[in-house]
Amino acid sequence: MVRACAEVRGRARAQPPGMGWLTASYIVDCAARDIEQRAAQIASEQSVECPLEAIVDERILDEIVARVVGIERSGKGRYRVDVEIATQTIGTNPAQFVNMVFGNASLWDDVMFAGLDVPESILAMFPGPRHGSDGIRKLLRVPSRPLTNAAMKPQGLHVPELAALCRTFALAGVDIIKDDHGIDDQLYSPFHERVRACQAAIAEAHRASGKTALYAPNLIGPPKVLHERARIAREEGVRAVLVAPMLVGLPAFFELVEAFPDFVYLAHPSFGGARSIAPEFLFGRLLRLFGSDAIIFVNVGGRFGYTRDTCAALAANARAPWGELKPALPVPAGGMKMDRIEELLDFYGADTMLLIGGNLLVDRERVLERTREFVERVMAWSPAR
Amino acid sequence: MVRACAEVRGRARAQPPGMGWLTASYIVDCAARDIEQRAAQIASEQSVECPLEAIVDERILDEIVARVVGIERSGKGRYRVDVEIATQTIGTNPAQFVNMVFGNASLWDDVMFAGLDVPESILAMFPGPRHGSDGIRKLLRVPSRPLTNAAMKPQGLHVPELAALCRTFALAGVDIIKDDHGIDDQLYSPFHERVRACQAAIAEAHRASGKTALYAPNLIGPPKVLHERARIAREEGVRAVLVAPMLVGLPAFFELVEAFPDFVYLAHPSFGGARSIAPEFLFGRLLRLFGSDAIIFVNVGGRFGYTRDTCAALAANARAPWGELKPALPVPAGGMKMDRIEELLDFYGADTMLLIGGNLLVDRERVLERTREFVERVMAWSPAR
Repeated sequence: MVRACAEVRGRARAQPPGMGWLTASYIVDCAARDIEQRAAQIASEQSVECPLEAIVDERILDEIVARVVGIERSGKGRYRVDVEIATQTIGTNPAQFVNMVFGNASLWDDVMFAGLDVPESILAMFPGPRHGSDGIRKLLRVPSRPLTNAAMKPQGLHVPELAALCRTFALAGVDIIKDDHGIDDQLYSPFHERVRACQAAIAEAHRASGKTALYAPNLIGPPKVLHERARIAREEGVRAVLVAPMLVGLPAFFELVEAFPDFVYLAHPSFGGARSIAPEFLFGRLLRLFGSDAIIFVNVGGRFGYTRDTCAALAANARAPWGELKPALPVPAGGMKMDRIEELLDFYGADTMLLIGGNLLVDRERVLERTREFVERVMAWSPAR
Repeated sequence: MVRACAEVRGRARAQPPGMGWLTASYIVDCAARDIEQRAAQIASEQSVECPLEAIVDERILDEIVARVVGIERSGKGRYRVDVEIATQTIGTNPAQFVNMVFGNASLWDDVMFAGLDVPESILAMFPGPRHGSDGIRKLLRVPSRPLTNAAMKPQGLHVPELAALCRTFALAGVDIIKDDHGIDDQLYSPFHERVRACQAAIAEAHRASGKTALYAPNLIGPPKVLHERARIAREEGVRAVLVAPMLVGLPAFFELVEAFPDFVYLAHPSFGGARSIAPEFLFGRLLRLFGSDAIIFVNVGGRFGYTRDTCAALAANARAPWGELKPALPVPAGGMKMDRIEELLDFYGADTMLLIGGNLLVDRERVLERTREFVERVMAWSPAR
């Protein structure tokens, strides 16, 4: 794969008219002798995710396979790698954009996503901030000085207390007054009642002082809840909202902004560091809790770095009794090869689904035979062998 | 804050009937002398997120403030910290659940979210896998042996080629045949056409071999797109789908499963390591690209660990010219105090919104005066002073 990716690197670029490449940059912690290989692995992972020998089509090699266009030392044992990714692979889907620029590569501990250079065709997909700094200043009628923001805390306060705090902040002249990011729709401060009371509080302060303030309620929930609350907020005259994009999901955030472009969106960083979740817990427990029936994870000894213990714990978590929750099926993957079938089954046991990806395809003339062998060996395996 | 949190730890628990606590566990890399303080900081961050002296209400101290219930050494310089979080703060909102168990704490490099012990009231909010291992086995009519899974690769193949590969895998006896996670709705393999062709391919293979296989198309997109494609897939007779929950967002995934409970959900790990995004790039660029007008980030010298350079680069990214995208307003936050107002403005300049949270509230009798001072000092600041 690596060798072949390096070959591709030298090929003439042959994107058809109207199609192009974006450049994604990664910071890679790695020894000098390994950086070319790591860079090629990133290019493969962020495009075709399979051995290049499994690709017989020239068009795919020319137009679809991502390619390394720059490797630059940026510190001791640290490199900046620039990879060109075909915009064809993204189309016009903002979720697929995230997938192609940093989907699988996010699973490597030594790779950090650090930059983007996108052509017009991709940028056109993103209207970006609908108001931006200037729009916020216009709403607040503050052309140039720094702005002020205060948060209503702590959660647990009842609505009259929150509204009183909101009024106090507005009277003091704060520009934007936001819910604390932990304030949702709890019994102690229901959303609609709170929004109405806080919006009334800033209106009252405005009558007293003549100074404009914006109240930004926190919108949090699955997409439908976000949209319902946005409608309520709009009806109550709200002009700014607080949302944690990484928590609700970037694509869900994108769609919310699209549906309610009149709001000023204040982005909260909550869950913005979500990689610090133990993999055995994220994949084994959380994804099951949220409704996954089968969970694909990157297995030890493949293209990623999870340990044997992590993988065993992950599978155990997916299956363990947990209230009324059904067990989920562990699916070890991420560079599994035919020669490991029995070893993997011995390790994970029968309540497992084996996923072999590119390795079934390395000989395009013998995919049926190779896959048959995969299936037969799985069927022939028994725990007692 | 820390001292007070330790005090709270000893208080009698006074949750009203029907309310309870969940226990979240974190792995913290930290020196022995600091672990109590770090644990207390996590408890504060995951509940009230403000100095305890700003809380005058006994009910909030008793019922809302999270508390450290266990600290255990789990390795050299590494501890497991158990924190009880009030279920009242979550209600029945799965997005708020993520927020309260690992929202802000995700932004600390030395803290990893590692476990959960949830009471019935919270578990009842999550139906979890609708099929689970047993349901998958039932659909496939495979009661006990390990299952097999293959992926159609590489992306870039046209629909007839993908369908042929699907048929080959099905004829070889593979149980679940999934799209590669990079396959979306690209011009070279449109979703509807692909799903119809691959579904026909497994039906054809079934007639030839008598063996049941499931085809799992990849659903990727903002929530509306996910739901549209799910409807198409259901109409075409699809029984299993591939989704990357961390990429579409856990709450969006939750809602999709709720809306289409008949599908078997195969969870893909893509974007499951999304913390490895340089903060200046994630907050300064990506969140702006997705539509944030103002971006709250954890500032240097507050409760989190971003450096001065990171913060400067983040603010520069939010404002820099970028195609037609409007600049977004940087909002440094995360433990900012009154004594830093001028320093922060000197550093960030006028095109900034300052967010002071709990520090405005430390003297509950003087919130108006303190906030007025905040506002006046911001107004009085000038770059030329």
